Amino acid sequence: MLIVGELINTSRAEVGKAVKERDAPAIEAIARAQEAAGADYLDVNCGTMLTDEVASMKWLVATVQEAVSLPLCIDSPDPDVLEAGLLKCGDFQPMVNSITNEEHRWAGVFPLVREHGTKVIGLCLGEGGMPSSTEDRVRVAGSLVEKLEAGGVEAGDIYIDPLIQPISTATSNGRDVLSAVREIMSAYAGVHMICGLSNISYGLPVRKVLNRVFMIQAMTSGMDGYILDPTDRQLMGDLFASNALLGRDRFCRSYTTAYREHLYD
Amino acid sequence: MLIVGELINTSRAEVGKAVKERDAPAIEAIARAQEAAGADYLDVNCGTMLTDEVASMKWLVATVQEAVSLPLCIDSPDPDVLEAGLLKCGDFQPMVNSITNEEHRWAGVFPLVREHGTKVIGLCLGEGGMPSSTEDRVRVAGSLVEKLEAGGVEAGDIYIDPLIQPISTATSNGRDVLSAVREIMSAYAGVHMICGLSNISYGLPVRKVLNRVFMIQAMTSGMDGYILDPTDRQLMGDLFASNALLGRDRFCRSYTTAYREHLYD
Repeated sequence: MLIVGELINTSRAEVGKAVKERDAPAIEAIARAQEAAGADYLDVNCGTMLTDEVASMKWLVATVQEAVSLPLCIDSPDPDVLEAGLLKCGDFQPMVNSITNEEHRWAGVFPLVREHGTKVIGLCLGEGGMPSSTEDRVRVAGSLVEKLEAGGVEAGDIYIDPLIQPISTATSNGRDVLSAVREIMSAYAGVHMICGLSNISYGLPVRKVLNRVFMIQAMTSGMDGYILDPTDRQLMGDLFASNALLGRDRFCRSYTTAYREHLYD
Repeated sequence: MLIVGELINTSRAEVGKAVKERDAPAIEAIARAQEAAGADYLDVNCGTMLTDEVASMKWLVATVQEAVSLPLCIDSPDPDVLEAGLLKCGDFQPMVNSITNEEHRWAGVFPLVREHGTKVIGLCLGEGGMPSSTEDRVRVAGSLVEKLEAGGVEAGDIYIDPLIQPISTATSNGRDVLSAVREIMSAYAGVHMICGLSNISYGLPVRKVLNRVFMIQAMTSGMDGYILDPTDRQLMGDLFASNALLGRDRFCRSYTTAYREHLYD
């Protein structure tokens, strides 16, 4: 199970302000809070800094690396921004968020993945646009895995993102993703899957409940990575419980440790 | 999805006392609370009334039927107690909890299922004792479904209970049940599955979290019935969310109705 902390994103007002003002202590505090809460990687995204994304990414990566001993997930569709971030990464293997099966995006991002030996998130997105079925996702995932492995990326460094779409726009959108997870995880040994959670609940009330329940459903179907807020105690509590129930927590040790450390208070 | 309310059970102190004292208003209040919370059936169990189980069941069924317009799930291993309860049931189709694949239990319970045209919970329990693997469960379930259908019971009236065992005694106990649910639900079209939730968490802290998360995992694997406390708001909230996410709630109507009726407040 890989937990990527999602909080360092300039689309969040607090982070946007801190990056604009180059307020290192504010960013460091958010990085440390996510590390303490159990994140394995920290996502770093400054996509809202339209005229200043490269410089912002350099500053942000350097600042976060000062604060925590965690690898980073450099998050941008722009190869120049990805490269700026990757060049500032320290000793840990970074992750690139993300590559797609679109020709243009692949051409820009894949050389960086190779050159920096990163883990990489592959979105189930091809020239045909957003996936609209289980089959779309399985087909694009297959093509991505094949090309990444042919290009020398280890299966264990590949994280396929099925691209979640809201159940408010089509009732089957959740079910389609769960089927895709089952099929992709059984077809490609060693490959991982990852997703953000918030799209699933777009347009509906009490989104946190839907996001949390969908995380459990996706885990049950085989998903083994999440981009989430690790400081959300109920989310993390359910994640530890879910892991234990799925038989992935020997003697329920992580669950009972989380309990003793007051996660469930 | 079938929700069987579990609260009318004499092993709960409040209910045991009310049954001993033939305190009808106390029982009626618990029955009405479960009906208001969305139960489809109410389980009625007086197994702790060792010397008085038949008379207690008669009184309890008559009392509950006065209070609510819901069918009942008559819960006892003893055919005499089941018959006493079934004879007091009103117009709705009752459910028998439970039959097993043990010769003696089958011989006592099956004639009642046939005579009263009930729904029936079939435990994955044969002469070999408690199931200890996915295969055990699938085998006993297959035998039960075959015998019940051969005896004239409709597939839609059969609810297979995989018999959950605690993850504290074997890490694989949850995973084995989930695999059994997937296999049984895909092998026997029209047959339902049902389970209680509390066994899974026996021996571990914060059992409510584990029970709730396992409910979501089992739903994701195909389970479509639960014996639970419908007045537990978080449990029911997650159940509505889970149903919507699995594409079983057209336009998310039940979920948004539950929200408007303040289930998530």
